[in-house]
Amino acid sequence: MQLCGFEVGLDRPFFLIAGTCVIESEQLAIETAGTLKEITSKLGIPFVYKSSFDKANRSSHESFRGPGLEEGLRVLEKVRRDVGVPVLTDVHEDTPLREVAAIVDVLQTPAFLCRQTNFIQNVCRQGKPVNIKKGQFMAPWDMKNVVDKARAVGNEQILVCERGVSFGYNNLVSDMRSLAVMRETGCPVVFDATHSVQLPGGQGTASGGQREFIPILAKAAVAVGISGLFMETHPEPDKAKSDGPNSWPLTRIKELLEVLVEIDRIVKQHGMI
Amino acid sequence: MQLCGFEVGLDRPFFLIAGTCVIESEQLAIETAGTLKEITSKLGIPFVYKSSFDKANRSSHESFRGPGLEEGLRVLEKVRRDVGVPVLTDVHEDTPLREVAAIVDVLQTPAFLCRQTNFIQNVCRQGKPVNIKKGQFMAPWDMKNVVDKARAVGNEQILVCERGVSFGYNNLVSDMRSLAVMRETGCPVVFDATHSVQLPGGQGTASGGQREFIPILAKAAVAVGISGLFMETHPEPDKAKSDGPNSWPLTRIKELLEVLVEIDRIVKQHGMI
Amino acid sequence: MQLCGFEVGLDRPFFLIAGTCVIESEQLAIETAGTLKEITSKLGIPFVYKSSFDKANRSSHESFRGPGLEEGLRVLEKVRRDVGVPVLTDVHEDTPLREVAAIVDVLQTPAFLCRQTNFIQNVCRQGKPVNIKKGQFMAPWDMKNVVDKARAVGNEQILVCERGVSFGYNNLVSDMRSLAVMRETGCPVVFDATHSVQLPGGQGTASGGQREFIPILAKAAVAVGISGLFMETHPEPDKAKSDGPNSWPLTRIKELLEVLVEIDRIVKQHGMI
Amino acid sequence: MQLCGFEVGLDRPFFLIAGTCVIESEQLAIETAGTLKEITSKLGIPFVYKSSFDKANRSSHESFRGPGLEEGLRVLEKVRRDVGVPVLTDVHEDTPLREVAAIVDVLQTPAFLCRQTNFIQNVCRQGKPVNIKKGQFMAPWDMKNVVDKARAVGNEQILVCERGVSFGYNNLVSDMRSLAVMRETGCPVVFDATHSVQLPGGQGTASGGQREFIPILAKAAVAVGISGLFMETHPEPDKAKSDGPNSWPLTRIKELLEVLVEIDRIVKQHGMI
Repeated sequence: MQLCGFEVGLDRPFFLIAGTCVIESEQLAIETAGTLKEITSKLGIPFVYKSSFDKANRSSHESFRGPGLEEGLRVLEKVRRDVGVPVLTDVHEDTPLREVAAIVDVLQTPAFLCRQTNFIQNVCRQGKPVNIKKGQFMAPWDMKNVVDKARAVGNEQILVCERGVSFGYNNLVSDMRSLAVMRETGCPVVFDATHSVQLPGGQGTASGGQREFIPILAKAAVAVGISGLFMETHPEPDKAKSDGPNSWPLTRIKELLEVLVEIDRIVKQHGMI
Repeated sequence: MQLCGFEVGLDRPFFLIAGTCVIESEQLAIETAGTLKEITSKLGIPFVYKSSFDKANRSSHESFRGPGLEEGLRVLEKVRRDVGVPVLTDVHEDTPLREVAAIVDVLQTPAFLCRQTNFIQNVCRQGKPVNIKKGQFMAPWDMKNVVDKARAVGNEQILVCERGVSFGYNNLVSDMRSLAVMRETGCPVVFDATHSVQLPGGQGTASGGQREFIPILAKAAVAVGISGLFMETHPEPDKAKSDGPNSWPLTRIKELLEVLVEIDRIVKQHGMI
Repeated sequence: MQLCGFEVGLDRPFFLIAGTCVIESEQLAIETAGTLKEITSKLGIPFVYKSSFDKANRSSHESFRGPGLEEGLRVLEKVRRDVGVPVLTDVHEDTPLREVAAIVDVLQTPAFLCRQTNFIQNVCRQGKPVNIKKGQFMAPWDMKNVVDKARAVGNEQILVCERGVSFGYNNLVSDMRSLAVMRETGCPVVFDATHSVQLPGGQGTASGGQREFIPILAKAAVAVGISGLFMETHPEPDKAKSDGPNSWPLTRIKELLEVLVEIDRIVKQHGMI
Repeated sequence: MQLCGFEVGLDRPFFLIAGTCVIESEQLAIETAGTLKEITSKLGIPFVYKSSFDKANRSSHESFRGPGLEEGLRVLEKVRRDVGVPVLTDVHEDTPLREVAAIVDVLQTPAFLCRQTNFIQNVCRQGKPVNIKKGQFMAPWDMKNVVDKARAVGNEQILVCERGVSFGYNNLVSDMRSLAVMRETGCPVVFDATHSVQLPGGQGTASGGQREFIPILAKAAVAVGISGLFMETHPEPDKAKSDGPNSWPLTRIKELLEVLVEIDRIVKQHGMI
């Protein structure tokens, strides 16, 4: 499959979807995207910048939600044009889809919404590639039904994304078998290495996270064989306005990508055993 | 709390929300509501009729979804007027909320959508009581955040509903502790005894169900102490157009309610130990 | 089935297995057994005293393990004779089974050991009734295999006991469906209401517990319909030398049993729907 | 740590524990060990032969359990001497430990028994290295308590082994975070890539397995960074007398090890990020 001008698949190097969880400012977006572009192009990793304009499902309604649609799209467009990278953002139940699709290169649907037929189909009707996150409540083989819904409206550029599955309360586990199972959909499989380390909810008013496990899960997933990797990053994760606990420091992303690229090369050389 | 003219709480008999999963025809709705009204009024159970006009999150996009908004609301209004019972229906990400709220007595939000802040708040803004189903991915103590979002828009008539939590793949478990934990929200707690026996997804294109466990879970939940019970029923569950495998036969609902009423009475007499 | 001289089954009142987790002293055992005998005989509940002489699977090897075999059996024999109640104790991988079986009325096998074929069969060969706890890792339908092993050595007095199933890390959930599923073994089903609220392991060196949920789960299980109830109790749970966090206060056991007896009566009157 | 004459750790190539699940015949054991020795020595993988003389916890008591202690030890001794490889076997609650320890190089304890204090300590007292499998019901951080028990009797040659954790009924999930967490014990961490794909119990009388996921999980675990890999293999898995469904074909083990060796080299070169 073609995605944003590059080829994706299990016979190609993995592509990276990365960025700050939420758009905090134009400057931060431009700088982060620029840094990531530089690192990934040296490593031969196709890159898509990701950031959200609105966090529609925060644990608490008092949390920061982002700059909103208009300002968010303005920043994403600027990143796209000035940095020269494709951009992805996530849309929600009440997002004006056409406006977003007019600007971004890839749309993404939230895990919680993967069973909403109308929503998934409306997003897929926008004619852009769509990264569909698998629900935390869903078995990997059931993504076939979701993909069937997506394709039924004529979109063939569907990515499926693992981001952990409910494991007791306030915890997720990343079932590596899932990455192999979801290949059966025929869609490129993406692994989200940062939401997978979330501790959803928790007893307070925000989700926690286990940043130290991001490289663990990223290495494991790349070794299994994936088409794409999703990772949220921030120059100063402890000051991030959203998902800081499960963001990987921008300053350490190069060393992580270096080992991932090598694992990826070997695994794909040997073929999927 | 007052709900549809009756008092609800742990010092009152449980109320029942029941009906066919989806509106299949006017006649079926009228008859089912009539039968349920007769049974519940003899047993002293306050009753709210439930049926859906659109199943927005079926496993497969090829399943029957219901009669649609207009025809669905027409039938619900007829049930309300002709049978003389309050009615509840569930709304989704793209439902015209005002139209629905103009007709029904209680709104219900789907479990998958319990983290969508805008959606929950928009539903709660309609000024009707709202039954919020807890997500299959959510810890019971995290419903506090959801209720806070709901109350922030001024709605104090919020019900919280347990319908099972993810337990491995294609299975749910009903954690009875959850019913006690959710009391801490201050909202009346409802137990959904029929979706709790769903086997979500499965390897095919529809969710399965374990009808034989409905009385098991209903009796357990009533013994724990709940304000309300939710149950889908059908005169011929094997012919139901949605959720048949986890519907309780209308012909057997009287015998089940009889034992539930007695358990409820004893448990509430003794107080919540 | 006959057990210790009383009849057990779904058409009989539930029997109670209760006592302090571990034998702390002769005096405590005698007093606790005496109090329980008095309460249960007033309520018409057949009663078996339970206490352990050795806690063989404590989280940490530095925890109190009990008085040991010899002193433990001496105390149990004294309880049996002086209080006049049947006694149950649990045996482990290296317990001299014959010595224990010579004294107690019922043997119990730990959940962790339910898959050890030799162990289960050796215990069952002692000719005493055996309460087999289902492993925290085991599906309820798989207890059929365990019961087959037990019966293969000629013991027909087998009880099967639910005590919670692993639900993520350091947590158990009590699946009420399990109580119905295990009836299929043909053995009386017992619900352990106190180990079910354990938080196994935890990040420290002992398991935690959620005492407040004991009545919740006990009421739920009795409402489902069980033959027996297992509950650890202590006059001062916070000072108990083992499993205090998941022991029910002896001073509050009467009020709990009173409501359970009434639920039990109603549920069994109506028959298992 | 030294193990059987080679150095193990995160700065050394992984070692392999492999063999047929149960000793089926002397010839099969010799041939399998010989083949594995040849393959591993070419790849620079330190190798320990594994096979069981008695499967003490089969689902059903009617399954094949192995040749028994005497014949089993005879075969293992012959493999050791004739093939010239160290051997490992698993011991159970009633195994004469001294006899086994006199012959084998490494002892292994079953996952179900990891909480039995006396058993674990008795095994560790034999003065041999011990591979302790983590229970399917246990959080990885709780292995610290088990290791403390093991070390308390003076054994410093302890390995800890992940083999999947309960995930709903009849399923296990391999949490890759666990491999990092268990490093905190200070013990070399081993990943069991074949029992991790077991479907424990199932509705019949034997555990199933998902052989196709063995390479998936093995690659993931090696990428995370482990000291050792455990894998059951058989020249004809479909004819294996135990654990066939989750054995990897001996004929395909070379291709799998080749890619694992390369992943291992890269991951350890880059260090544990």
